[in-house]
Amino acid sequence: MEFAKLPPGDVRALIREGTITRHTSGMCDGYAQANLAVLPSEYAYDFLLFAQRNPKSCPILEVTDRGSRFLKTIAPGADIARDIPKYRIYKNGVPGGEYTDVSEFWRDDFVSFLIGCSFSFESELIAGDIPVRHIEEGRNVPMYITGIECESAGIFHGKMVVSMRPIPPELVVRAVNITASMPRVHGAPVHIGDPGVIGIKDVGKPDFGDAVTIKPEEVPVFWACGVTPQSAIMSARPSIAITHAPGHMLITDVKNLLLKY
Amino acid sequence: MEFAKLPPGDVRALIREGTITRHTSGMCDGYAQANLAVLPSEYAYDFLLFAQRNPKSCPILEVTDRGSRFLKTIAPGADIARDIPKYRIYKNGVPGGEYTDVSEFWRDDFVSFLIGCSFSFESELIAGDIPVRHIEEGRNVPMYITGIECESAGIFHGKMVVSMRPIPPELVVRAVNITASMPRVHGAPVHIGDPGVIGIKDVGKPDFGDAVTIKPEEVPVFWACGVTPQSAIMSARPSIAITHAPGHMLITDVKNLLLKY
Repeated sequence: MEFAKLPPGDVRALIREGTITRHTSGMCDGYAQANLAVLPSEYAYDFLLFAQRNPKSCPILEVTDRGSRFLKTIAPGADIARDIPKYRIYKNGVPGGEYTDVSEFWRDDFVSFLIGCSFSFESELIAGDIPVRHIEEGRNVPMYITGIECESAGIFHGKMVVSMRPIPPELVVRAVNITASMPRVHGAPVHIGDPGVIGIKDVGKPDFGDAVTIKPEEVPVFWACGVTPQSAIMSARPSIAITHAPGHMLITDVKNLLLKY
Repeated sequence: MEFAKLPPGDVRALIREGTITRHTSGMCDGYAQANLAVLPSEYAYDFLLFAQRNPKSCPILEVTDRGSRFLKTIAPGADIARDIPKYRIYKNGVPGGEYTDVSEFWRDDFVSFLIGCSFSFESELIAGDIPVRHIEEGRNVPMYITGIECESAGIFHGKMVVSMRPIPPELVVRAVNITASMPRVHGAPVHIGDPGVIGIKDVGKPDFGDAVTIKPEEVPVFWACGVTPQSAIMSARPSIAITHAPGHMLITDVKNLLLKY
């Protein structure tokens, strides 16, 4: 895959200069990628509490200090406003546009939340000889809004969003074990089998991302998804919020392996 | 041990009516106990962020809604202001007194943080045939202020406080594995061996709790401790804070075993 062997800092530099604007799936083999949610500080406590109460959907990797565009731990030197290939700006909960650079919109009261991403456990699944269908088919992972209500916190509430991967029945236990060992990137599945049990009407019609082939014998397995915070932002309607565009992540300097410890 | 076989709700009722005022070590076998920190909401974001940045010291089990004295998840029905045997009140970071009931001091802007406690992993260590010296000797666990600086967050900063248990060398790996499986109650040790490496001058003189016997062949093993937030409160000097008195915990309805998942 393109950029798979480059170190994270090099790829972030290519993103910053505008050379890379596509989704980051497959880039920087072995390094964790992160979901982004940026909010004015007046919403920061409610959002951090929402993440604390919903750790499977919103495993926090780092929170910046108020106003800072820079990370101290997971990607020192990265510029949050420029080093993601594509951003979304939400105004009053409504997605208002996509940008490759949001530095002109930055405010001194912004706080950034970096949240673990299932790309990290996908590379572990593949290393464990478990097929990951959307990667095989060159698509984005299928994501669904479930009937599972998140624990609310202040203004933030909403339904859990999940990602789905079809797994051969003899590999389901292995997939549970591999992902359970990585709680900082969503951890073990939230559901195995019948999509209707968690309120998904048609597994062939995802709410985000692309549909993928489910072979007759395969079991759909569902993991909590880092798009859940965007669903909560749409429900809570803060005056402004900036997120990554789905699939267009921050590539961190943290090795996936170290997210286990 | 006294009250070991009673269910948590019964023991909390005895605490609430004033029949139990002593430390809770050994009570309600198999159920998790929790550290408490109560702060006015103006400090809640900084404190929650401090906990997020220092998860080994401050693994959050639950945060109440503003003003509420009641828990929804870990001990439904418990009254935070009355169901702990002994409280401490800090004013401007200075411990100001101990109380068996703090309901007369309660304010509508208080937020309560319940934090995992090493009592949970001690019962697992004992189940794994690992001796826990302070329990054998009927003492409080020895705790030390280390030279390890916590990650600061807003006004909160300070040194990490650790608890120490001397472990026979052939059982150290088992003790690491058992506690690593319980990250919500401090998880794996932060240090094994020479106390000087983490800034402890005299392991015979703990800063909190009691000294315990270390046999010649035994290795001192150090875990992050839930007294760290009290150290941070002493450094940050919020106008008021209420905590449990060390060893006098909230007994929850959550089984220790379920803290692994």
